[in-house]
Amino acid sequence: MSLTLEGVVLSPGIGIGPVLPLVPLAFVETGSLLSEEERGAELGRLEEALNRAEADLVRLQAQAEKTLGADKAALFSAHRLMLRDPMLVGAVREAVAGGRSASDAVVVKTAEIRALFEALPDPYLKERAADVDDVGRRLFRALTGHVDPSDLAGREGGPFVVVARDLTPSDTALLDPSRVVALVTEEGGPTSHTAIIAQSLAIPALSAVAGALGRLIEGTVVIVDGLKGEVVVAPDEAALDAGRRAAALFAEERRQAEALRDLPAVSADGVALPLWGNIARPDGAGEILSRGGDGVGLFRTEFLYMGRDEAPTEEEQLAAYAEALTVLSPRPVTIRTLDAGGDKEIPYLASLVGHEANPFLGYRAIRLCLDHPELFKVQLRALLRAAVAGNLWLMFPMVVDAEELRAAKALLDVCAAELEAEGLEWARPAKVGVMIETPGALLMADLLAREVDFFSVGTNDLTQYLLAADRMNPRLKRLQDPFHPAVIRGLSVVARAAAAAGIDLGMCGEMAGDPLAIPLLAALGFRELSMTPARIPAAKKVLRSLSVAEAGKRLDEVLKAVTTAEVRSLLASWP
Amino acid sequence: MSLTLEGVVLSPGIGIGPVLPLVPLAFVETGSLLSEEERGAELGRLEEALNRAEADLVRLQAQAEKTLGADKAALFSAHRLMLRDPMLVGAVREAVAGGRSASDAVVVKTAEIRALFEALPDPYLKERAADVDDVGRRLFRALTGHVDPSDLAGREGGPFVVVARDLTPSDTALLDPSRVVALVTEEGGPTSHTAIIAQSLAIPALSAVAGALGRLIEGTVVIVDGLKGEVVVAPDEAALDAGRRAAALFAEERRQAEALRDLPAVSADGVALPLWGNIARPDGAGEILSRGGDGVGLFRTEFLYMGRDEAPTEEEQLAAYAEALTVLSPRPVTIRTLDAGGDKEIPYLASLVGHEANPFLGYRAIRLCLDHPELFKVQLRALLRAAVAGNLWLMFPMVVDAEELRAAKALLDVCAAELEAEGLEWARPAKVGVMIETPGALLMADLLAREVDFFSVGTNDLTQYLLAADRMNPRLKRLQDPFHPAVIRGLSVVARAAAAAGIDLGMCGEMAGDPLAIPLLAALGFRELSMTPARIPAAKKVLRSLSVAEAGKRLDEVLKAVTTAEVRSLLASWP
Repeated sequence: MSLTLEGVVLSPGIGIGPVLPLVPLAFVETGSLLSEEERGAELGRLEEALNRAEADLVRLQAQAEKTLGADKAALFSAHRLMLRDPMLVGAVREAVAGGRSASDAVVVKTAEIRALFEALPDPYLKERAADVDDVGRRLFRALTGHVDPSDLAGREGGPFVVVARDLTPSDTALLDPSRVVALVTEEGGPTSHTAIIAQSLAIPALSAVAGALGRLIEGTVVIVDGLKGEVVVAPDEAALDAGRRAAALFAEERRQAEALRDLPAVSADGVALPLWGNIARPDGAGEILSRGGDGVGLFRTEFLYMGRDEAPTEEEQLAAYAEALTVLSPRPVTIRTLDAGGDKEIPYLASLVGHEANPFLGYRAIRLCLDHPELFKVQLRALLRAAVAGNLWLMFPMVVDAEELRAAKALLDVCAAELEAEGLEWARPAKVGVMIETPGALLMADLLAREVDFFSVGTNDLTQYLLAADRMNPRLKRLQDPFHPAVIRGLSVVARAAAAAGIDLGMCGEMAGDPLAIPLLAALGFRELSMTPARIPAAKKVLRSLSVAEAGKRLDEVLKAVTTAEVRSLLASWP
Repeated sequence: MSLTLEGVVLSPGIGIGPVLPLVPLAFVETGSLLSEEERGAELGRLEEALNRAEADLVRLQAQAEKTLGADKAALFSAHRLMLRDPMLVGAVREAVAGGRSASDAVVVKTAEIRALFEALPDPYLKERAADVDDVGRRLFRALTGHVDPSDLAGREGGPFVVVARDLTPSDTALLDPSRVVALVTEEGGPTSHTAIIAQSLAIPALSAVAGALGRLIEGTVVIVDGLKGEVVVAPDEAALDAGRRAAALFAEERRQAEALRDLPAVSADGVALPLWGNIARPDGAGEILSRGGDGVGLFRTEFLYMGRDEAPTEEEQLAAYAEALTVLSPRPVTIRTLDAGGDKEIPYLASLVGHEANPFLGYRAIRLCLDHPELFKVQLRALLRAAVAGNLWLMFPMVVDAEELRAAKALLDVCAAELEAEGLEWARPAKVGVMIETPGALLMADLLAREVDFFSVGTNDLTQYLLAADRMNPRLKRLQDPFHPAVIRGLSVVARAAAAAGIDLGMCGEMAGDPLAIPLLAALGFRELSMTPARIPAAKKVLRSLSVAEAGKRLDEVLKAVTTAEVRSLLASWP
């Protein structure tokens, strides 16, 4: 039998090919010192390397734009800015002037700046440490003549199974599906950048494969089974055959799903269940259409607020919201008001939040916004003005009771009156709703339902709060599952309240795109499901072969299940 | 009209008397340096001061034992150990040998050690910073001849209204109700040490009185109204008269409540609702009896694990549990298994928990214990052996589903079999139950109820999780109220599940001792209420004049309330 390594599926599918290890180059000091006379020439070498690194980035950006689109290629312009940032290049020049070799200076300064970013409490900025490292290594390669391991453009053979500790931002932005048939990493979780890109490119990917770099030798053929979560090393002919058949079957199923793109999102027994996409930027709206989606169930506006020094202006926000609304009009675009705080810390808002012992139980989202109308009104005004451009569903996050909802709606009215008085064009949102993501909102759902047009359940946070288990804590895996019976029962409580009040009920958490969940959600009475756009085709396939009436008959047994395993096994047995 | 300052009530009641400000002495360096010859004499002075400070502590300990009992007086033996700890005294001696005056050295080293403790992530150790400061100041006073401001033994006049920024551990341990009629502090919250001690001594106390030290002059007579939450400064005769009448009325009500001590905890219409006490150490059991309580609803065992270098042995735990069981036998003693983690970090368990971004949503209580049977079994074995001594109700914390409960019960069976095989004496607990403190457990209550003998609702955590609001976060006051309608509805869900399964239903959170809550809880079907022992008399008074049947008729209106204010105002209108 062949050696088999186990891993966690980041992106489904089956890929077969020779291993290409992305071994990070040795990025270390040599300790060599320059004489006074050598320093001028070294500074010249540094400038040339900077130019080469920049030319690399320009070329890679063009390449990524072709394969991945402008959105993802934007990474490389960010890297170009970093490359020219005085924090890095100024410090390196100074060190060279002081007698260090340019490559040593790059190693040391990169490590210093990287450590600065890593020490920041803000998770967005902390992630930038990987970019700093990426840029520093690129400059180092330009100085030392090493080849970029992830730049497959000039490399013979393949397509490859790329094996790495974790992928750098450049690695992921450069992934070319015609050259890479699968990814295997030692680190990186299901919500990592790698996972998102791999799913969007439909490249099978596994992570948490222990010792992958040491155990998978360059050129060895492997089967990466992103259905079972395993890597079969040097398979025999029989195993290869089976792998190829499974790959073909999976590809066929995916093709069938893609073929459904232009067909309506309706169950076999005629229940319409629109499939929507979640986006973070207006230019994500296009992908939803290309995947056959019918609208946006969640526009996470906090990304407009991140990576800047101050909050976006009313005009900036108006432009972003109006773009998404226009692209999708007349389809609904559900825009969630700012959900700052929690794990989404925004540096210039940090002083409002203060240090928190438990940010997920903290001063976040609507709590922060209601206390700071000077901040919140800018967004509400932009939304009212953008509503003219399309079908806006406005959604408030983290609401726990009618008091908060009423305060938010009152502030919306204030903004409307202001805009009217100022003679600016504006419109009421088509619908106003709330996220149901706290247990409190769940228990108050009947009262909240009287005062909104729709509910949208956020299963990630709801699961975390129902089970009192931080959704990022690696020790609490068992309690991070939305198929936990307490969550299923919670969904049923919300669904009954929405049905009794006759309001719309949607879901915009991870669960909404899970094929195992869709029959259950349809049976519970959900009427919009919003997911990562890449999951829409598979969801449509499940939906179109589903009898909602039949699923409804089996609902009771799931609501009586005692364990998560029972819930999953019951759902797996549904026809 | 007299000047009136507002504050937050820490302990109810009305106290009238002259202000005695506890102004902290100037604890600063003088910068004076010693010549070589002076240093020997200074070291001698230091030793004398150490002896005087120690003698102080011995005397204060004896004094506190008389007024407050051995439990609270134990603080002073801890301070004696700190006083002799080489970390402090060694560093001071070294600084003196280097030419600093002993008092300067004490100031500097105290600040350094204090800062070390304050920087620790563990909240228990962090609190020790106040003790370090307290001990350092005591040594400083012994060196400089200052009088201990909180030591009222030698002070003429009074009884006083003590006014302070916040009370030090020594201050609170020395509070003598015959000399102090009320407390007013600028800092310190409702769950502070000051609040607990003031309640237990029945001394009215207000905190958060802004600028109290600056505005309340020594000797000025004030009325501290711990019912309305205000301090009336220099009241005129009419106000003084009214204050005295209110104080007499309150004292009379309290006497009436105390007089109920030996009467049964039964409502006016004959519903028995035992009132129990919450304790953290076995010697707290006595106070419950002296307050007229009928058992222990919550023995927080984590305090046995704190302030040590390793977990308590089976024999140590057995002794502690058996003591409480014996004192109260045949009354029930509900012992909660270890609730480590969350805000109760225990240094030698920290490596099991790891760094957590959200400790309240973390790897705590039963989660940690089930993964570490080597730790958990010691406690379970001690409990099974202690069960021989009385009426043990064993309770598991933070359970969210039947899987956890089953695993815990299975481990209990393993321990029982081991004890049997070893020939040790043991008994089954009279009852086995779970805390209902997560929303998940609430939604699963019908299933959990089939597998336990009782539920005990922990309202502090349940409120925090239902409303996704850290109960310690000062920005979330509005969401830290157990009278929030979502919490009330949650209680009703649990109560229905317990009633349907015919199991016992108790509450051991703060709410259980609140007179406003008792009619509601009785109407919902709670059958044991466990509270700070000092609250038992007042609770019994409410209970004995309550018609549970009448309260039941008004339950529905409360379950339909939309806001916390509505819930409170409805309950206040109940007869």
